[in-house]
Amino acid sequence: MNLVLLFPSDLCGTRATLRDHRFEHIRKVIRPQLGDTVTVGLLDGDIGEGVVEALNDHEVVLDVTYEAEPPPPIPAVLLLALPRPKSLFKSLQLATTMGVKEVHLFNASRVEKSFWQSRRLTPEAIREHLLIGLSQAKDTVVPTVRLHRLFAPFINDALPGIAQGAPGYIAHPSEDHQPCPRGRTQRTLLAVGPERGFIPHEVGQFRNAGFEPIALGPRILRVEQALPVFLAKMFD
Amino acid sequence: MNLVLLFPSDLCGTRATLRDHRFEHIRKVIRPQLGDTVTVGLLDGDIGEGVVEALNDHEVVLDVTYEAEPPPPIPAVLLLALPRPKSLFKSLQLATTMGVKEVHLFNASRVEKSFWQSRRLTPEAIREHLLIGLSQAKDTVVPTVRLHRLFAPFINDALPGIAQGAPGYIAHPSEDHQPCPRGRTQRTLLAVGPERGFIPHEVGQFRNAGFEPIALGPRILRVEQALPVFLAKMFD
Repeated sequence: MNLVLLFPSDLCGTRATLRDHRFEHIRKVIRPQLGDTVTVGLLDGDIGEGVVEALNDHEVVLDVTYEAEPPPPIPAVLLLALPRPKSLFKSLQLATTMGVKEVHLFNASRVEKSFWQSRRLTPEAIREHLLIGLSQAKDTVVPTVRLHRLFAPFINDALPGIAQGAPGYIAHPSEDHQPCPRGRTQRTLLAVGPERGFIPHEVGQFRNAGFEPIALGPRILRVEQALPVFLAKMFD
Repeated sequence: MNLVLLFPSDLCGTRATLRDHRFEHIRKVIRPQLGDTVTVGLLDGDIGEGVVEALNDHEVVLDVTYEAEPPPPIPAVLLLALPRPKSLFKSLQLATTMGVKEVHLFNASRVEKSFWQSRRLTPEAIREHLLIGLSQAKDTVVPTVRLHRLFAPFINDALPGIAQGAPGYIAHPSEDHQPCPRGRTQRTLLAVGPERGFIPHEVGQFRNAGFEPIALGPRILRVEQALPVFLAKMFD
């Protein structure tokens, strides 16, 4: 936790009172003295410092001053065939830490049905991992995550509105794939398939939507490994 | 496990008999019929296919043919301040999957002493994670991993021989850092610090050894997150 995220409900004027896991983290890991400062950020707002005004066994009180905007996002729109929960949460956390602000989880032929039915796939669990990713990166702006449970309506109806004319790439080893583009500064879509890949029909649908296949070479990476590699190559 | 790694001791002529976790994986996950093929690779050798000749509750017998060389490595020499065991194993596995073949783990001021004393830091545990990384990437060539328990002898005595005149970069946010170099095809050293960073003296020592500081921007990544990002940017 490189930054303690504050919610509007924590605040009364410039004073934030924390009693939950953030308080525990401050008390046990940061272990500040009275008067010390802790890096804080207001959800979807600026980042700054909180001076420790009180700290006891139950709560910490911070006097907060904002100093800077959160770090700039990367203009990636991530389209992710729903991975298994463990991999999903790792991927969301990582994408958030790297500055992705828009994620679409969609169904594909080789996504196991059980992944959609998992009791772990809740808005609360998703949000928790987004917030961990933000705290890690000293960011405050929560990414949007949308779920698309059916492939056809996703690709036919939702995708044009998501793309808004931006270029799209599909991570898929194919004979005529091009290498990963570099240094993108404009809105760019990146579609990543399920563990065992897209089926040809799905690749065709993405191609019809203007997506170009890109690949990383002969080594096979897991979704949560491929993601930082693609993002690192595509965006500076 | 995208490739079943074979050791010379598994083989009698072209036949490999497996009874350990690789057998369990083949039986429970791949679930082949007799006559089906399984992707295999000989440790430090070629990759190919094994035709399932026998499969029972105790063992699998594969008839092995080699077809191709393992994927090319990336010319990265990774110098990693010893992370905590969990992070170390993730990092080693990931670096191996990405094609790194030479890793040096070294001590630094902000490396916690307990990391060196951990009972998990054994050659067997290190090797296990290297092999997982190889299987994931369909690679066979085991990286070398060397431990340097003292910083001064590492940087003064060992480093010149490791570098062999190759350029080196140190992942460290500093005012005069340059952006991460791109598309390296020659031997290149990358030094990554401990969780809380290098101390100024260590940065100075690396600079004296010709290393240039590079940084990733305002977002703070954990070691196992920064590693794929640096490697993806530096090597194609």
